[in-house]
Amino acid sequence: MSPPPAANPDRLLPADPGTRSIARELLARVEDLPIISPHGHVDAAMLELDTPFPDPATLLVSPDHYVTRLIHASGVPLERLRMGGATAVEPRDTWREFAKAWPLFDGTASGYWMRDSFQHVFGLSKEVNEENADALFDELDAKLQSPAFRPRQLFKNFNIEVLATTDDPLDDLAPHAAIAKDPTFTGRVLPTFRPDAYIKFAAAGWAGRVEKLIAVAGDGMAGYAGYIRALENRRRYFVEHGAVSADHGVRTAQTLRLDAVTAATLFDKACRGEATAADADVFEAHMTYQMARMSVEDGLVMTIHPGVFRNHHTESFNRFGADTGHDIPFAVSYTEALRPMLEDFGTAQGFHFIPFTIDETVFSREIAPLAGFYPSVYIGAPWWFLDAPDAMLRFRSAVTETAGFSRSSGFIDDTRAFCSIPARHNTSRRIEASFLARLVAESRVSEARAHEIIVDIVDAAPRRAFKL
Amino acid sequence: MSPPPAANPDRLLPADPGTRSIARELLARVEDLPIISPHGHVDAAMLELDTPFPDPATLLVSPDHYVTRLIHASGVPLERLRMGGATAVEPRDTWREFAKAWPLFDGTASGYWMRDSFQHVFGLSKEVNEENADALFDELDAKLQSPAFRPRQLFKNFNIEVLATTDDPLDDLAPHAAIAKDPTFTGRVLPTFRPDAYIKFAAAGWAGRVEKLIAVAGDGMAGYAGYIRALENRRRYFVEHGAVSADHGVRTAQTLRLDAVTAATLFDKACRGEATAADADVFEAHMTYQMARMSVEDGLVMTIHPGVFRNHHTESFNRFGADTGHDIPFAVSYTEALRPMLEDFGTAQGFHFIPFTIDETVFSREIAPLAGFYPSVYIGAPWWFLDAPDAMLRFRSAVTETAGFSRSSGFIDDTRAFCSIPARHNTSRRIEASFLARLVAESRVSEARAHEIIVDIVDAAPRRAFKL
Amino acid sequence: MSPPPAANPDRLLPADPGTRSIARELLARVEDLPIISPHGHVDAAMLELDTPFPDPATLLVSPDHYVTRLIHASGVPLERLRMGGATAVEPRDTWREFAKAWPLFDGTASGYWMRDSFQHVFGLSKEVNEENADALFDELDAKLQSPAFRPRQLFKNFNIEVLATTDDPLDDLAPHAAIAKDPTFTGRVLPTFRPDAYIKFAAAGWAGRVEKLIAVAGDGMAGYAGYIRALENRRRYFVEHGAVSADHGVRTAQTLRLDAVTAATLFDKACRGEATAADADVFEAHMTYQMARMSVEDGLVMTIHPGVFRNHHTESFNRFGADTGHDIPFAVSYTEALRPMLEDFGTAQGFHFIPFTIDETVFSREIAPLAGFYPSVYIGAPWWFLDAPDAMLRFRSAVTETAGFSRSSGFIDDTRAFCSIPARHNTSRRIEASFLARLVAESRVSEARAHEIIVDIVDAAPRRAFKL
Repeated sequence: MSPPPAANPDRLLPADPGTRSIARELLARVEDLPIISPHGHVDAAMLELDTPFPDPATLLVSPDHYVTRLIHASGVPLERLRMGGATAVEPRDTWREFAKAWPLFDGTASGYWMRDSFQHVFGLSKEVNEENADALFDELDAKLQSPAFRPRQLFKNFNIEVLATTDDPLDDLAPHAAIAKDPTFTGRVLPTFRPDAYIKFAAAGWAGRVEKLIAVAGDGMAGYAGYIRALENRRRYFVEHGAVSADHGVRTAQTLRLDAVTAATLFDKACRGEATAADADVFEAHMTYQMARMSVEDGLVMTIHPGVFRNHHTESFNRFGADTGHDIPFAVSYTEALRPMLEDFGTAQGFHFIPFTIDETVFSREIAPLAGFYPSVYIGAPWWFLDAPDAMLRFRSAVTETAGFSRSSGFIDDTRAFCSIPARHNTSRRIEASFLARLVAESRVSEARAHEIIVDIVDAAPRRAFKL
Repeated sequence: MSPPPAANPDRLLPADPGTRSIARELLARVEDLPIISPHGHVDAAMLELDTPFPDPATLLVSPDHYVTRLIHASGVPLERLRMGGATAVEPRDTWREFAKAWPLFDGTASGYWMRDSFQHVFGLSKEVNEENADALFDELDAKLQSPAFRPRQLFKNFNIEVLATTDDPLDDLAPHAAIAKDPTFTGRVLPTFRPDAYIKFAAAGWAGRVEKLIAVAGDGMAGYAGYIRALENRRRYFVEHGAVSADHGVRTAQTLRLDAVTAATLFDKACRGEATAADADVFEAHMTYQMARMSVEDGLVMTIHPGVFRNHHTESFNRFGADTGHDIPFAVSYTEALRPMLEDFGTAQGFHFIPFTIDETVFSREIAPLAGFYPSVYIGAPWWFLDAPDAMLRFRSAVTETAGFSRSSGFIDDTRAFCSIPARHNTSRRIEASFLARLVAESRVSEARAHEIIVDIVDAAPRRAFKL
Repeated sequence: MSPPPAANPDRLLPADPGTRSIARELLARVEDLPIISPHGHVDAAMLELDTPFPDPATLLVSPDHYVTRLIHASGVPLERLRMGGATAVEPRDTWREFAKAWPLFDGTASGYWMRDSFQHVFGLSKEVNEENADALFDELDAKLQSPAFRPRQLFKNFNIEVLATTDDPLDDLAPHAAIAKDPTFTGRVLPTFRPDAYIKFAAAGWAGRVEKLIAVAGDGMAGYAGYIRALENRRRYFVEHGAVSADHGVRTAQTLRLDAVTAATLFDKACRGEATAADADVFEAHMTYQMARMSVEDGLVMTIHPGVFRNHHTESFNRFGADTGHDIPFAVSYTEALRPMLEDFGTAQGFHFIPFTIDETVFSREIAPLAGFYPSVYIGAPWWFLDAPDAMLRFRSAVTETAGFSRSSGFIDDTRAFCSIPARHNTSRRIEASFLARLVAESRVSEARAHEIIVDIVDAAPRRAFKL
């Protein structure tokens, strides 16, 4: 009898017995290392206040668009999943929908993480199914109300050493400051500067937001000059509050160096509400270049996440808001797009630039060759739809032969699902062990070196890439 | 001694003994299930009339451009393969060319299917080679003249439950009606509505064909309005004759919602022979949208097959016609292209939309994310050049981690080679078993669930996606 | 205890014991066959004069941009690697930088080749590391000064039967002629016609170079007509000196048939220094077509290497010149781009056209389908960043199911690193054995046929594709 998948200590390791045994040893070297999470979307206030988690559906289903999307695809309306603040159904009903849909998640990354956390975080007594949905809801609910499942206790159990959040440039970062001063909290919770909503002309409320930004942090300057100054100032504020990186949800990877007059003209046009979509693209490319320039100056690591068509289904967006499961990737290119920026900053001392992608064709074709030459370029770990066992193996296969193991960012969980963090990092460690074990089995890397490499990948790489 | 490849009961299963043993059990669950073939190109009249098959070359070589293309690449002129009605050589000579070229097919999908049907359909006594070409021609020829090899008997032997054909909108579907009424024929043979030749301005004879369409089915209306009405009427006629789907060999996946006046203007321009290539693209995109609208109304499942440059070599096209081996794929994108249609119909009740692709980069990047949100979108099985063991494994790996197993169309053989149907479906079942076996071996899916999933994939998925 | 990776006779073979044992037998069939290298960048004069090699750093590090790039990415300035003729540091210091960076190469193709040649060409006594850098420098240096490590002796030891160089159209090919006449030299050293610098308007010195070309070989004709005539004449000169192919480092795969007047107009514009970047692209596409036309006439095999953004980092280019590690691939397409040429020459008697790519998405989508129909098209082996174990396996998986094994070019080492040639060919043979062994283990190819196929791939394919 095999153990249930999530309880199998060999889960995700390769089937071939010889390779599996190598992988097991490699995994043992890193499985218990602390978690370093340099990019994600957990709310710092939750950790500051140690707020008890809500019921299981509100914690595990409604806010996680990785999970709700597949249930929606099976025909369940988003309101039944309490998306976008919908309250027409009870959390228990949402949980029942989830339990009914649970078999759909077999083979998916989300399904793997959930099963792993049901087993290892929550110690659920049974597999989820339609029949025991209510019982498991109650079992989980009871646990979530107990002190053992408070955020701070879980943070400790999860062995998290560093956790980065993602924050609005005007955020006062009070929770981060409070946590940093709290002697009872030993982990590092770092903010990340994310200025998208102040850069994309088409973002709802852009003009008002920018006006406020300039008023608050523009040193009395107006217009484009005040805007640039204010962004520089807020970045400095973030650095003072422990930030190590700035993140950019750009539409494409395009960069562009406009002169200040041209940039200001576009900016003013947008302030008057007259900018076209093409203007917005040009300005965004210019600002990506500017953000690199600021990173060179203030030392914040720069990460970009391009190539996603956000809010593909307008009706769902209008009714339930953003992040409701219909952000769809498209093809991107980096070689020509990044050139204006890399020409000027690609070899700049101390500059770290981490491109992520969901278009996996660029790993072997563009990103590995770029990271294999430019000291500033680190290869972003597989992101979003690619943050899954097979996709991670394809990633390593695609980049390693060109760029080796030293040029990667290390694992990024990129999640708002706090309870899934250990499962995600554990998955990554198992896959790294699996990939390296194959290279050892094929005499491409010595076993001794593989043991060094896996520790480097899991522990040193994120510290190095993110300057931790 | 290993058995010859086609006789090995473990063929296509993974080499690792533990994984193979899991795969064997999974295969046993589905190997003998009836064949459901919801998309293909077999001629219904052949089954109506139970016409004896012609000689082996005319049956197995000349009409199959998967086979003739590789022989042509090796230097054999198409006339020697009796393409496009060429009769300069005898069928036996064409068969000799095939036998001589047989080693070229090692490792190809076509070679695998042919070997499989030589073994399991025809029970050939020897491997094909140049020396025994004549003897095998005679052996096959004799079998093909016997009652055991008539179409209806093979249909029964193959255990086909449903077989869809592909038909011209003005086809009277008499063979389908005759088969449906025939109490001695137990399978379902369904027509499929394929209007390409009435939509693409550049298709030879477009204007005359459209004129006839409007005259026959336009309810007395003229021009664009009559055209739309006629298409609606003919779709209804197909539905009445059992059709469950409409298929579209579109150039790209672009969709577009034009107002009726703009569409009519383009249509009239084309009728006058004045439409440009750009006009044709716009009109085709508009009609793809219109076809989705009609599918929402009449319930026909909508399938698209974009991204193929048809008739790449003009000289071969002029001499031998279409489907002679030089249709070459190119890169396509779906995320932005499908949006106008999915905005309006993506969540429409009962709408089923199945995009196929030969550009495998879109599986993980676009199609799985789309099918993982929109209830209407089912992932088309690997098509054409991708309908092969390794490509099918890449497909499952690319889509499953995002969309699970429930969002796929199920296997489609898409073939005019009737005798290859069992080999194709059997290949697919073996690959599904292989993929699932690996997930079980890696503790990603429980063995019990894998047994449920493989039955779902093979049997329930095509029924679900195609409303059978 | 496992042997060190490079000493393991099973290195690169699949981990599964059954598959490995099949692969071992397949490898034994081809491991000792002579090396056929129909495309590369070794200097013929080195073999003519049998010049002793320089010190280890100047031989193995500085000229190899596969190696220097990753050291540069780790933060070492190119001058410390003695790039572009820099002499500020001693070779021994460059070697120390290499030794320090050596762990970065684990898992890379370059690392594998270097380790393999340290073991099998140089018989190094220890693994490279920072501590023994000096000792190994001295050990290698002493060997390189001994007669056993002269180019001609190594050429013999490497068992090279054919080695093609890459040459300027105006090169007098004296070294090739001298080698051909030398009875003590038994291998064939063949020139390759590479006219890029005479075709790309933007290449530095284009006008002067073209002027000289016309003066030398234009048969007294002037302008575009003289240019075409001169290219034809120089190709003939190459053919007379044993050339079998012409190579083209085109920007994209675009081909175009301009009439002579239009082409001449562009040419004249470029001579006046007035051509735009768009003009240059059009002219290059036209010349790719013209080169195909000439290949049809003079029989030179035509190879193209498109899709690389050369000299991505201008500052590094200005300081250190071309080929210094920042050539970065981008997405390309072939289906529409090659059509003008294939329409006219795709089925021309004796024409051989070999497209290479670093954009691996085109293997299954475009190149295999093209080579599976056009008798002239041979699939270029994995090139540059794709010339690595995993990438070669992906290549075989991507093309074989469509085009079988007969349509590939055979392995191309494409290297200027003479001492790495045996390692590169050996790697390829091991990967071919691994791929075929899997097909045998999965009953997709019989073991007997696999033994024939591997000999065909390794030995017959390059002779066939390159007319050797």
